[in-house]
Amino acid sequence: MSTIVDRHNLDFLLFDMFDLEKAHASGPFEGQDRELISQLLDTAQRIAEAEYLPTAASLDAVPPTFENGKAVMPAYVGRALKAYSDAGLSAQSFPVEFGGLGISHTVSMTVNGMFSAANIAIANYFLLTAAAARLLLAFGTEEQKSRYASHMIAGRWMGTMCLSEPQAGSSLADITTRADPAGDDAYHLRGTKIWISSGGHSMSENIVHLVLARLPDAPAGVKGISLFLVPQKRLNEAGEPGEDNNVTLIGLAHKMGQRGTTNCQLNFGEDGPSVGYLVGKPNQGLHAMFHMMNEARIGVGHVATMSGLVGYLYSLQYATQRLQGRRIGQKDPASPQIPLIEHVDIRRMLLAQKAAVEGALALCTYCALLVDEQKRAEEADQADLALLLEVLTPIVKSWPSEHCLEANKWAMQILGGAGYTSDHPLERLYRDNRLNHIYEGTYGIQGIDLLGRKVRLAEGRGLDLLLERIDATIAEAAHIPALSSHAAWLAEAVGWVKEATSAALAEPDLERSLANATLYLDATGTVVIGWLWLWQAIVAVRMEEGGAASKAFYEAKRAACDYFFRYQLPRAQIDLGLVKTLDDTCLATTPEQLRVA
Amino acid sequence: MSTIVDRHNLDFLLFDMFDLEKAHASGPFEGQDRELISQLLDTAQRIAEAEYLPTAASLDAVPPTFENGKAVMPAYVGRALKAYSDAGLSAQSFPVEFGGLGISHTVSMTVNGMFSAANIAIANYFLLTAAAARLLLAFGTEEQKSRYASHMIAGRWMGTMCLSEPQAGSSLADITTRADPAGDDAYHLRGTKIWISSGGHSMSENIVHLVLARLPDAPAGVKGISLFLVPQKRLNEAGEPGEDNNVTLIGLAHKMGQRGTTNCQLNFGEDGPSVGYLVGKPNQGLHAMFHMMNEARIGVGHVATMSGLVGYLYSLQYATQRLQGRRIGQKDPASPQIPLIEHVDIRRMLLAQKAAVEGALALCTYCALLVDEQKRAEEADQADLALLLEVLTPIVKSWPSEHCLEANKWAMQILGGAGYTSDHPLERLYRDNRLNHIYEGTYGIQGIDLLGRKVRLAEGRGLDLLLERIDATIAEAAHIPALSSHAAWLAEAVGWVKEATSAALAEPDLERSLANATLYLDATGTVVIGWLWLWQAIVAVRMEEGGAASKAFYEAKRAACDYFFRYQLPRAQIDLGLVKTLDDTCLATTPEQLRVA
Repeated sequence: MSTIVDRHNLDFLLFDMFDLEKAHASGPFEGQDRELISQLLDTAQRIAEAEYLPTAASLDAVPPTFENGKAVMPAYVGRALKAYSDAGLSAQSFPVEFGGLGISHTVSMTVNGMFSAANIAIANYFLLTAAAARLLLAFGTEEQKSRYASHMIAGRWMGTMCLSEPQAGSSLADITTRADPAGDDAYHLRGTKIWISSGGHSMSENIVHLVLARLPDAPAGVKGISLFLVPQKRLNEAGEPGEDNNVTLIGLAHKMGQRGTTNCQLNFGEDGPSVGYLVGKPNQGLHAMFHMMNEARIGVGHVATMSGLVGYLYSLQYATQRLQGRRIGQKDPASPQIPLIEHVDIRRMLLAQKAAVEGALALCTYCALLVDEQKRAEEADQADLALLLEVLTPIVKSWPSEHCLEANKWAMQILGGAGYTSDHPLERLYRDNRLNHIYEGTYGIQGIDLLGRKVRLAEGRGLDLLLERIDATIAEAAHIPALSSHAAWLAEAVGWVKEATSAALAEPDLERSLANATLYLDATGTVVIGWLWLWQAIVAVRMEEGGAASKAFYEAKRAACDYFFRYQLPRAQIDLGLVKTLDDTCLATTPEQLRVA
Repeated sequence: MSTIVDRHNLDFLLFDMFDLEKAHASGPFEGQDRELISQLLDTAQRIAEAEYLPTAASLDAVPPTFENGKAVMPAYVGRALKAYSDAGLSAQSFPVEFGGLGISHTVSMTVNGMFSAANIAIANYFLLTAAAARLLLAFGTEEQKSRYASHMIAGRWMGTMCLSEPQAGSSLADITTRADPAGDDAYHLRGTKIWISSGGHSMSENIVHLVLARLPDAPAGVKGISLFLVPQKRLNEAGEPGEDNNVTLIGLAHKMGQRGTTNCQLNFGEDGPSVGYLVGKPNQGLHAMFHMMNEARIGVGHVATMSGLVGYLYSLQYATQRLQGRRIGQKDPASPQIPLIEHVDIRRMLLAQKAAVEGALALCTYCALLVDEQKRAEEADQADLALLLEVLTPIVKSWPSEHCLEANKWAMQILGGAGYTSDHPLERLYRDNRLNHIYEGTYGIQGIDLLGRKVRLAEGRGLDLLLERIDATIAEAAHIPALSSHAAWLAEAVGWVKEATSAALAEPDLERSLANATLYLDATGTVVIGWLWLWQAIVAVRMEEGGAASKAFYEAKRAACDYFFRYQLPRAQIDLGLVKTLDDTCLATTPEQLRVA
């Protein structure tokens, strides 16, 4: 078995559950049929297993170092990235007119997942480059698209996103990097950026930095932030990288995980002018960033899910092979030891992982489908699809990053002491995954985004649309004897979400209304995952009824659904109850009370 | 403020809550009054802050290396250990006749906690040495005590515990290391041991290994395991370390955390005879080990708690100082940024940590008191105290290792991206703490110990005694208006424990009875911590009523109690409900169903 992908489960999700063939039967992704998708997945799996997986441990052990102003790293990182773009994969989800392959977001996310699973530290370089290129295609000038984005799509150049500054981590309103007009359409950028992933290296001919900065006359706060394109090397007449652009690597952060991805402190304009170009309109930089955030946040959730998946598959394999101990009640020491998986508590930890990982993967895939659906939909439906995705975005970013991290914890636990050592990949996955909880907006920020903004948009239509879809699944399950009680439980859980939402929205004091927003986020996510498990169980029942082979596969789907409904879903009631009652335990506790002498 | 100790909270626990002065007023610890204890704590804090804390990050970054058959490490490790024993601290809890100071276990655990907090990787060396010395004092011959243990107590020699083998991790029944009689009282040991903490180094004149092995005629399984003392260097006539004893370091495991503590694979008898001596009776080795396990397991819980404490104090300090963002609803970007702690979600993460850490510390301290109380008690009471401690042992080992790990997660989260880097100690603490969940018996093993053995001993008398003590606290709180609803909640929670226990014990199929034992362990632990929070809240109310200064300190205690009762305690109902209904989701799922092609 592969430890980076469960192809059977992918087929189940893509084709049996979400019917991708139907979705691709017409419209922009027409012709991307099951055969083509399978070929793409085959190619990705082959490259990921050959070029990414084998170096994951060593790159973690010997991450990039800061030498003479450059991040230096093993040559296999560049080779792996080249293998990806040589196979055309850097171009997969981009429009044909810019050299892309026009593959649907759903498929390309799934393809990229193989690489995230195998070696996220390397995959980050192309994931960030693609995000930057997408931003340029959405907001850049034609010249920016052809002179910069096209090379990123081809995999020749890479990209970064430069947001945070030392004095302003999550608080973008407080960034101070300046952009002063310098004639023609050029600006000179000046400032310091931190937490810049995938900068500072020499693996590509150029690096295109997308930088948030302020124009001289910009208003204070988030309304005065503009977006600039700042190349590492300026382009010459021929459009090739030439002169150095004074984007200086000051140092690399030493991270707990994802260690092979550089994390840079960059100075702009310190050693000479850093020439940049405005992307989009002045003072609209945050709007542009936010526009791309849905896909980026689905991406974080997906990366978290992939870490969880590898841990699950690896610990499952180990538990199947490793002999340890005897069945409870077996007192004869001469009897042979049994595989770990024969112990019920090991199976509990496997089911917990499966429920989290395959639930999270269903959510990521569903959100990617919504991205694609927007491109296919009639204009009348697009607003609704957008609102639905807005509500799901904080959830898909957050739920996997919390619960697939927990899954990685259980994967380690199954291996015992061995799981705590670098002899196995699990402690690395656990470290890697911990980041997803933090970047692209922390859990707390996502909570405020969901309860403070997303469920209030358009009079709550996004949440209504979500709950309607959940209700439809409940209605279907209610007619299936094996799932009718699950349907009733989920209906009850939907009630918890509604009551909590109403109570929070009815509270005029915004701080109090949002005092338990993180719990709301997590628990609403749990209800959503419960929905996707019920949906999976319905499909499993139908497939079994339809006489599909692999009975055990469908039974396991239903077992994981049971696990989730019995062991996880009830927790949402507690958290949503605290939201509903506007519990003020945390709000009422003062900083002075917490002070320690 | 210190980040390794909250002395105010220690005083509250030791003197206000547990009345250590009264406990030490007579009996074996007479004279260990508040002044003496405070002096000991002062000394420990001074050494821990001067010699342990400053090197924690660098030892983690550059852990011991395996060179020419030895573990090589920075000289400051040996210096720190010497500072500890030079101050007499290696002798603190041992009887005076062996050079000890006769300090109570409660105080000595608290003193050692400063070092665990500051640098667990170094503290492990003396913690393990003390555990080995205690085992020798309990089961060794007079000669073993004077020739070996006394040097360990003096801090001149160190010790290890050698249990696991490559083919037998948690399953000690399957160890194969042999001990063959070699004339007089000597044996020749032969076999391989893994996961041996704190061996392989040259920091002490000798290392005393306590090794589980089988005599030639030993029965199979756990009934054929004996305990042997195997010195790294054999003693000469003068009792000084002389000839090498062929205990060979084969390699060091590369661990996720606690990296400065060597983790050795050791060979015995490969390069020549490894001479050892029987400790205690033949085939009674596991009995001896288990005898010492209560204290060792309290120790693991305490170490986990200390990791949680440092994370809490550090993130509290950071949240107080770091300016970031604005209050919700404050739209003016020109208004100054506020400290992180002003955000309610940050306070939630602080309260979550405080509730876990100070709850866990109360539990560890309570268990240490029971160890001391056994030494003071009338013989008639000793059996009851022992049974109570038996029930609490799996809980005190496990609950802190799960929930203070979670606390470390929230500490990192408060710092955001910074918390993910080695610029701050939090990611290290999180890595260090992950081990506590695994060693000295995993969570799953502790669950089976609690539900499969401990609550069944003496017809459940241990659990009855625990619930009686909880009931007494409930009765007291019921009369305090501010706490009467907490009292009612806790009474309800005690009901969940009783019902779950009864149902599990009534189930004749042991595998089914124990199918959710880990949940039982965790949830019963949550109820116990709820009890200790209610107790703390009672003391806080009484202190406030008594006119004690530091009103804010007591208010914060009550806020943490509220947090625990509202946010954490209800979860126990879900888990105990699954135990009560003998839920078979995990039991019924087969290895075949989970198989991935």
